Amino acid sequence: MQKNKNVHTFIGFDSEYEESDIIMFGAPFDGTTSFRPGARFAPTIMRNESYGLETYSPYHDEDLIDKKICDVGDLELPLGNTQKVLDVIEDFSRIIINDGKIPLMIGGEHLVTYPAVKAIYEKYKDIYVLHFDAHTDLRETLFDEKLSHATVMKRIWELVGDKKIYQYGIRSGERYEFEWAKEHTILTKFTYDRLDEAIQTIGDKPVYITIDIDVLDPSVMPGTGTPEPGGIFFKDIIDILLKIKKLNIVGADLVELSPHYDPSGVSTAVACKILRELAISIK
Amino acid sequence: MQKNKNVHTFIGFDSEYEESDIIMFGAPFDGTTSFRPGARFAPTIMRNESYGLETYSPYHDEDLIDKKICDVGDLELPLGNTQKVLDVIEDFSRIIINDGKIPLMIGGEHLVTYPAVKAIYEKYKDIYVLHFDAHTDLRETLFDEKLSHATVMKRIWELVGDKKIYQYGIRSGERYEFEWAKEHTILTKFTYDRLDEAIQTIGDKPVYITIDIDVLDPSVMPGTGTPEPGGIFFKDIIDILLKIKKLNIVGADLVELSPHYDPSGVSTAVACKILRELAISIK
Amino acid sequence: MQKNKNVHTFIGFDSEYEESDIIMFGAPFDGTTSFRPGARFAPTIMRNESYGLETYSPYHDEDLIDKKICDVGDLELPLGNTQKVLDVIEDFSRIIINDGKIPLMIGGEHLVTYPAVKAIYEKYKDIYVLHFDAHTDLRETLFDEKLSHATVMKRIWELVGDKKIYQYGIRSGERYEFEWAKEHTILTKFTYDRLDEAIQTIGDKPVYITIDIDVLDPSVMPGTGTPEPGGIFFKDIIDILLKIKKLNIVGADLVELSPHYDPSGVSTAVACKILRELAISIK
Amino acid sequence: MQKNKNVHTFIGFDSEYEESDIIMFGAPFDGTTSFRPGARFAPTIMRNESYGLETYSPYHDEDLIDKKICDVGDLELPLGNTQKVLDVIEDFSRIIINDGKIPLMIGGEHLVTYPAVKAIYEKYKDIYVLHFDAHTDLRETLFDEKLSHATVMKRIWELVGDKKIYQYGIRSGERYEFEWAKEHTILTKFTYDRLDEAIQTIGDKPVYITIDIDVLDPSVMPGTGTPEPGGIFFKDIIDILLKIKKLNIVGADLVELSPHYDPSGVSTAVACKILRELAISIK
Amino acid sequence: MQKNKNVHTFIGFDSEYEESDIIMFGAPFDGTTSFRPGARFAPTIMRNESYGLETYSPYHDEDLIDKKICDVGDLELPLGNTQKVLDVIEDFSRIIINDGKIPLMIGGEHLVTYPAVKAIYEKYKDIYVLHFDAHTDLRETLFDEKLSHATVMKRIWELVGDKKIYQYGIRSGERYEFEWAKEHTILTKFTYDRLDEAIQTIGDKPVYITIDIDVLDPSVMPGTGTPEPGGIFFKDIIDILLKIKKLNIVGADLVELSPHYDPSGVSTAVACKILRELAISIK
Amino acid sequence: MQKNKNVHTFIGFDSEYEESDIIMFGAPFDGTTSFRPGARFAPTIMRNESYGLETYSPYHDEDLIDKKICDVGDLELPLGNTQKVLDVIEDFSRIIINDGKIPLMIGGEHLVTYPAVKAIYEKYKDIYVLHFDAHTDLRETLFDEKLSHATVMKRIWELVGDKKIYQYGIRSGERYEFEWAKEHTILTKFTYDRLDEAIQTIGDKPVYITIDIDVLDPSVMPGTGTPEPGGIFFKDIIDILLKIKKLNIVGADLVELSPHYDPSGVSTAVACKILRELAISIK
Repeated sequence: MQKNKNVHTFIGFDSEYEESDIIMFGAPFDGTTSFRPGARFAPTIMRNESYGLETYSPYHDEDLIDKKICDVGDLELPLGNTQKVLDVIEDFSRIIINDGKIPLMIGGEHLVTYPAVKAIYEKYKDIYVLHFDAHTDLRETLFDEKLSHATVMKRIWELVGDKKIYQYGIRSGERYEFEWAKEHTILTKFTYDRLDEAIQTIGDKPVYITIDIDVLDPSVMPGTGTPEPGGIFFKDIIDILLKIKKLNIVGADLVELSPHYDPSGVSTAVACKILRELAISIK
Repeated sequence: MQKNKNVHTFIGFDSEYEESDIIMFGAPFDGTTSFRPGARFAPTIMRNESYGLETYSPYHDEDLIDKKICDVGDLELPLGNTQKVLDVIEDFSRIIINDGKIPLMIGGEHLVTYPAVKAIYEKYKDIYVLHFDAHTDLRETLFDEKLSHATVMKRIWELVGDKKIYQYGIRSGERYEFEWAKEHTILTKFTYDRLDEAIQTIGDKPVYITIDIDVLDPSVMPGTGTPEPGGIFFKDIIDILLKIKKLNIVGADLVELSPHYDPSGVSTAVACKILRELAISIK
Repeated sequence: MQKNKNVHTFIGFDSEYEESDIIMFGAPFDGTTSFRPGARFAPTIMRNESYGLETYSPYHDEDLIDKKICDVGDLELPLGNTQKVLDVIEDFSRIIINDGKIPLMIGGEHLVTYPAVKAIYEKYKDIYVLHFDAHTDLRETLFDEKLSHATVMKRIWELVGDKKIYQYGIRSGERYEFEWAKEHTILTKFTYDRLDEAIQTIGDKPVYITIDIDVLDPSVMPGTGTPEPGGIFFKDIIDILLKIKKLNIVGADLVELSPHYDPSGVSTAVACKILRELAISIK
Repeated sequence: MQKNKNVHTFIGFDSEYEESDIIMFGAPFDGTTSFRPGARFAPTIMRNESYGLETYSPYHDEDLIDKKICDVGDLELPLGNTQKVLDVIEDFSRIIINDGKIPLMIGGEHLVTYPAVKAIYEKYKDIYVLHFDAHTDLRETLFDEKLSHATVMKRIWELVGDKKIYQYGIRSGERYEFEWAKEHTILTKFTYDRLDEAIQTIGDKPVYITIDIDVLDPSVMPGTGTPEPGGIFFKDIIDILLKIKKLNIVGADLVELSPHYDPSGVSTAVACKILRELAISIK
Repeated sequence: MQKNKNVHTFIGFDSEYEESDIIMFGAPFDGTTSFRPGARFAPTIMRNESYGLETYSPYHDEDLIDKKICDVGDLELPLGNTQKVLDVIEDFSRIIINDGKIPLMIGGEHLVTYPAVKAIYEKYKDIYVLHFDAHTDLRETLFDEKLSHATVMKRIWELVGDKKIYQYGIRSGERYEFEWAKEHTILTKFTYDRLDEAIQTIGDKPVYITIDIDVLDPSVMPGTGTPEPGGIFFKDIIDILLKIKKLNIVGADLVELSPHYDPSGVSTAVACKILRELAISIK
Repeated sequence: MQKNKNVHTFIGFDSEYEESDIIMFGAPFDGTTSFRPGARFAPTIMRNESYGLETYSPYHDEDLIDKKICDVGDLELPLGNTQKVLDVIEDFSRIIINDGKIPLMIGGEHLVTYPAVKAIYEKYKDIYVLHFDAHTDLRETLFDEKLSHATVMKRIWELVGDKKIYQYGIRSGERYEFEWAKEHTILTKFTYDRLDEAIQTIGDKPVYITIDIDVLDPSVMPGTGTPEPGGIFFKDIIDILLKIKKLNIVGADLVELSPHYDPSGVSTAVACKILRELAISIK
C-alpha cells in the first residue's frame, strides 16, 4: 500500500505513457444509440472486472506483462453534442498517433470509431478497415442524421474509399445496405469465412480493427445495445485474433458493450478477455 | 404524429385485418405452468422489443413490408378458469380461419396450442403438426388434470391421430411418454435431424407449426418456464424455417417465452427474430 | 376481440383526440443524461404496466372513466441531435395548445420540459412553473452545453423571468446554483413545506407542473437516472396533487423515470399511479 | 450431521407435529393472479432465507425456541384447477383444526385464504376476520369468475356475514367496492388507525388474521404481484402485531409475497421477519 | 486528458497523501459473512458511482473541494486467512495515525472495524466508539470463532472497556447479547434517540465512528448482507452526522454495503452520499 | 400431506441413509473465493430448483427412481476458519466411505474437493482424479495461502502424485502453472479430446470425479465465480458422463455454482441436470 492516490487501470495495462507502444483509452459515448443505451459504462466496468483475468494468454502463449501498454482512462465528453464529442476523440487519437503509438479505444457506441479512423487516416491514407459486427452500419442517415451508430461505416467509407472495408458476421440491416455493400465494401454475411482473403490482400499495409461486440452471439454477449442472435462465438474471436496478428495493426477498438444489460456479468468478462487477446495481437 | 390513439403492433405487422393474409394475436395464459409462470407477458413485451429489429431478413432475403400481416393484440382471458380460456382462443381462431386467413398465435404457455389446433382441425381434418420442443408434452394428465402444458400434445393427438405429429428437439419427459411416442408420434430426441423426412411425407397437406421456445438451448433462451440445457441453437431454427417454407402452413404459434426470467432481454430479442422469420416462412 | 390493429394506451386514456381535454404523449429522449440513461423507455413501459392500476382513485374519489384523455403515443425523435429533438416536442406541444387542449407529457429526461414550456409560453406569457425535483437544474451549462437536463430550469427562467418558478424537494446541486436561486426562483430545500404560499400567489394564473420523478425518495423510486436519498414520499405527492388541483393547470409533465434501473418494477408502478392522480388533478 | 434425509423448516419452526400448537404450511397457488404471478414461490424461498433471522424478537422480547411450531412443508396443489386447489387447502386446514391446533398458512395468492377460513368457520361460527391489504378484494367476480384473488373477501363475507370483517390499509379497488364496504365490512382507507376499536369489539371471540403483504409500502415490499404505493411500513406491522397479540387468534396467514420480483431479496427478508413476529403473536 | 495512467478516486477525495487530513482506504474483506457475502465489492463500486454526486452538501452547506482527503485505494488482503487480513488493516491504520492523519475506512464486512480501532486505541486509550447498526455484534463467538462480523463489538469492548461503546438502531441479536449489553455498553433499541447524551458525555474526548450500513432501513438500503426491516432512514443519518460533527473524530468507517444485492444501484448511491456527508463531518 | 416436519431433498435423492449407495451432501463454503463469492448458496438453491427436472434421463435411458441416493443436507461449516471447514468436510467424507458408500458433494468453492479426496485417499491409495475446469488450480499459493480454490489441485497432487490427475477444459492460469503441469499432471487445454486415453489407462482403478462448473462456457453457465469464455457445452458434459460411466467412481463433486450471479436461473437448471446425470453415471 503506497501513499498515493488510487491508480486503477485495466489489468496489465499499467506502463507509463511515454514508455508504452499501445495507449488504451475509453470513449464513453452512447448518444446516438437508438435501442438500449449504456455503452458509456463499458470502459469503467471493464477496468473493475479485468481483475478476474490472468495476464497470461494460453491462446497466444504470451503474457501482458511482456507488453508496454498504458491505460490513460476515459475521455471527458460533452454529452448531448455529438459533433463536439467526435472532435475530442479525434484530437486525442491524433496525439497518440503523432507520438508514434497505437490507439486502442474502448467504446461507447460504434460512432466513436469514426473520429479515431479519421485521425489515423491523416497519417495512413492507404488504411484498411476490418469490421466485425452484427450490423451493416451502412445507412446514409438515421432519423436524418449523418452521424450515427448506424451510419458509421458509411462515413468511414467516405474517407477510405471502395473495397477498403472488410465486414464480417453481418446479419442485420436494411435491404438497401446489403445491396450497396456489394459494390463498395467486402461484406460476408453471418460468418468470417473469407477472412484469409482479406489478410492476403492487405499484406503489410496499415489496418484498423473495429470489433462491435454484438458480432458475438447474444448467448455469450447479452450485454449490448441491440443483441442479434445467430452470431459468432468466443472461439471464433480467438481464431480471428490469431489470424490478424500478422497484420500491421495501427489502431483498434472494441465497442458497444452495454454492461448494465447483463446482470450476470458474463458479457463484461468476455469483453475483458477479448481486450486482453486483442492487445496481445497487436505487435 | 397523428391525432389518434396510440396504435402499437409488432414491427411490420401493421396491415389492416381485412387486407391481411396472416393474423397475429396474443394468448397471454400461463395458468397450468408448473414451474416458472410468466409466459402471459410474452406478447406485450415482444411488441415493445420488436423495434430493435429491422423488417428485412437477410436469411430469406425478404422484407416484412412486402407481407400483409395484422397484429390484433391480445385476447382477454378469464384467468383462473382453464376451460373458458381455451374456449376464447378456439373461438377467435375459428373466426380467423373462417375469414380465410392464417392464425399466428403468441403464447402464453403451450396449452394454448390445443384450442388453436382444434379450430383448425374442423376445417383441415388431414392436418399435420410439426412440434419443436424440449419436452414430450405427452402426459395423460398432470396433477390429475387433462388440460395442461404437459399434456397438450396428447390432447392434440386425440384429434389428429397416429403419426400425424412430428416432434423435434425433445430431451425431457417421463420414461412412459417416450415409450408411448414410439407408437403414436414421430419423435426425434435432441435434434431435428429427420425433418426432411417429414417435409417429404407431408407434401402439400395442411400443416400446423408449434414452436415451444424452450426447444432452444437456454444459453440463448433463458427466459422460459422450464429451461432444459442441450437444446438447438438459433441457426438451427433458421435452418428449420428455411426448410418448412415450402409447406402449406395453415396455422402457427410460438409459445412459452417468459420474459421476466431474462433480465438481459436476449430471450425476447431472439423470440422476436424467430417470429419475423416464421411470419416470412408462411406463404 | 375486434378485427383491428392493436391499440395500446395508458389505462383510461382512451378517448379520441378530438373529444379529449388532455392529450398525453411520450417524449422518449435521454440524450443529455450524464449519469444513467434509459428515461427513453418510460412512456412505453408505463403504458404496459398501467394495467396493474384501477381507473378509480380513492384519494380524489374520482375515476378516469369520467375524464376525456387521449394517449397519442410517443413522438419520433432524431436521437443524437438535441436541437432537432426539442423542435419536434415544441411543435407538437404547440399543436395541442392551439387545439385548446392541455399537453400531458411523459419523459424522457428533464430537458424535454423546456420545449413544452416554450410552446405554452407563447400563449400564456404570465405562466408560473411548479417544479418538483431533487436537483436545482439551474446550471448555466453542463460540459459547455446550454441544453441539458442540468440546465433546463435556467433555460425556462430565461423565458418566464424572476420569481415565476417554484422549486420543491431540492437536495442536490452546485453551491452556486443554490446561491443564484435566492434571487431568481423560489426554492425550498428538501421539502415542499411552502407550497401553500405558491398556490395563494398564483391564484388563477396559468401554471405548468413539472415533476422530476427523482423528487421522490429512492426507496420508493429507484428507477431514475440520478437517485438522491432524502426525498419526499408517495403520500407527499398525493398531498401535493390534492393541493394543486385548484390551480389553473395548462400543461404538465412527469420526467426521468428510467425503468430498466428498477428490476422490481416498483418505480414504474409508482409513476403510473402518480400519472393517474396527476391527470385527475387537471380540471 | 446426522444420517438422515435433509429436513428443512422455517427457522425455529422445528417441533414435531404432535407436540405443536401451531402448524405452518405453504399453499403455493397463484392461478388467478391477474398481474404478476409468482406467489407460488414464497413458502420455499422464505424457508431458505429465514436463516438470516435470529429466533429472538426484541419487539416482543420472546424467542421462537420457547414456542411449539411445526413447519410441515407445502401442499401439493393441482395447478390449473382452481376448485380442486381450494379443496386441498380446506381439507388440510380442517385436519389441523380438528387436531386442536392453529393453522398458519403461507400463500400463494390471496384466494387461498378462502378455504382456510371456510374450514375454520365450521368450528367457529362467530369468527371475526382482520384483513390487512392494499386492495378491497370485494369484487363480485373478476373476468366472470367468482373465485379470484380480487373476490376473496366477498366470498368470505358470504360465510361470516356483515360487520365481521375489518379491513385496513386499503388504497385500491373499484369505486363500487368501496361503496359496498360501507354497509358490509369495516374498512379503513390507507391506515390502520381504528384497529383499537376492532380489538375492543372482538374481545375474546375467535379471530382469523390475514395479511396480504401488499398492505406494506412497495419501498419495503417490492416483491408482490400488484405493488401499490402509499402503504404502511414495517414499524406499523410491528405495532399491529403487538396490539393483536391479546386476541384469540385461531388461524392466520401471510399471502402474496412474490419473491422473484425482488432481486434484492429484501421483500423476503421482511416477510420472514413478519412471519416470526406473527407466530410469536399467537398465544 | 493527460498522458498518465488512470487515477480513479472517490469524487472529491483527490488530494495527495502528504497534504491530506483524512485518508480513505478500502478494506475489501467479507470472509466471515454468514449470510450474503459481497461487501468486498463496496469500495470499488462506490468510487465508480460517486460520480453521480456533487461535491457540495446542501445539508452542511460545505463542499468537498474545501477539504483535504486522499483516496489511496484498496488494501490487498489475503483472502481465506482472517488473522492475516486483520493484521494488514491494523498495520495500515497505524501508519495513517502515526502520520497524524485520520483513517476513513470503507468495508468490507464489520470485522474490519476491529483492527482499525486496535491501531487507534494504541494512541487514544480513552477512545469512545459510536456504533450504528441493526445488529448487536456482541456475540462471544460465532461457529466457535472469536473473530467474526457478529462478535466485532465484543472484541472492541475487550479493548476499550465498559460504557465506552454507544450502540444505536439495534434491532437484531440473540437474547443474551441484549442482556449483556445492559451492563457493558450503552445500547438503544431501534432508534438513536439518546445520541445527545452520548455527545455530552464524550465532550472533546477522541471518538471512533462505525456505521454498519444495515442500520438503515432496507427500503433505502437493500444492498447489504443481512437486511433488517425497521431501520432508520437517510434523513436520520443526516441528523446524526450534523450532531456528531462537533465531536473529536479520530477515525471512522462505513461497512457492510454489498452492492451486488441491489441491482437498482440505490444502495450504492445512498452509501456514497453518506460517505460524502461523513467526510464533511470530520473536522 | 403428512404430519411431519418438512423434508426437502434434491429430486429423486430421497432414500434413507442406511439403504443408499450414494450420499449427497452440501459443502457451502466460499471463503477463499478471490473474485465473486456465493458458491455457498449452490446446494440449497439446487434442491429448490431440482423440481423443474424429471427423474428420467433420456441420455442414459435410466431413472433416478431406480437408484438409492440419500440427500443428507448441508454440513454446518465454521465460516472464517478455513482449516476447520476442511476438517469438517474430511470427517464427514470419511464417515460415508467407512460406511461403504460413495460421497457426492455439492460445493461451495473448489477447495472443498481437497478434504474429500484426502478422506478417500486413505482408503484408495491408487486413486485417480478426473478434473474438469476452466482453471489449472495448480498455484503453489494464492496471497501466500496454501489452502485456496486456486491451489486445490496442487494440494491434491501432493497426495496422489505425478500423472494421476487428468485435467480437461483448462483455459486460464499463470504461465508457470501450465509449465509445471507438463511434468506432473495430464492437462488438455480447452477441450476434453483425450479423455478416452484416461479411461483406458485408469481401467477399473478407483477414480474421483471433480467438476468445476466453470468448465462450461459462460453462455450456458454464467452463474459461477470466475466465468471464462471458450468453455465446453452441455452436450459435451453429457458425452463425458456417458464415457466415464464405465469407470469405478468412488467419489465425485460438483463445485463453483454461484447462483446469485445468474438471475435467469439457467445456471442452476444446468447444474441440476448435470447432477442428475452424474448420479446416474455412478454405478
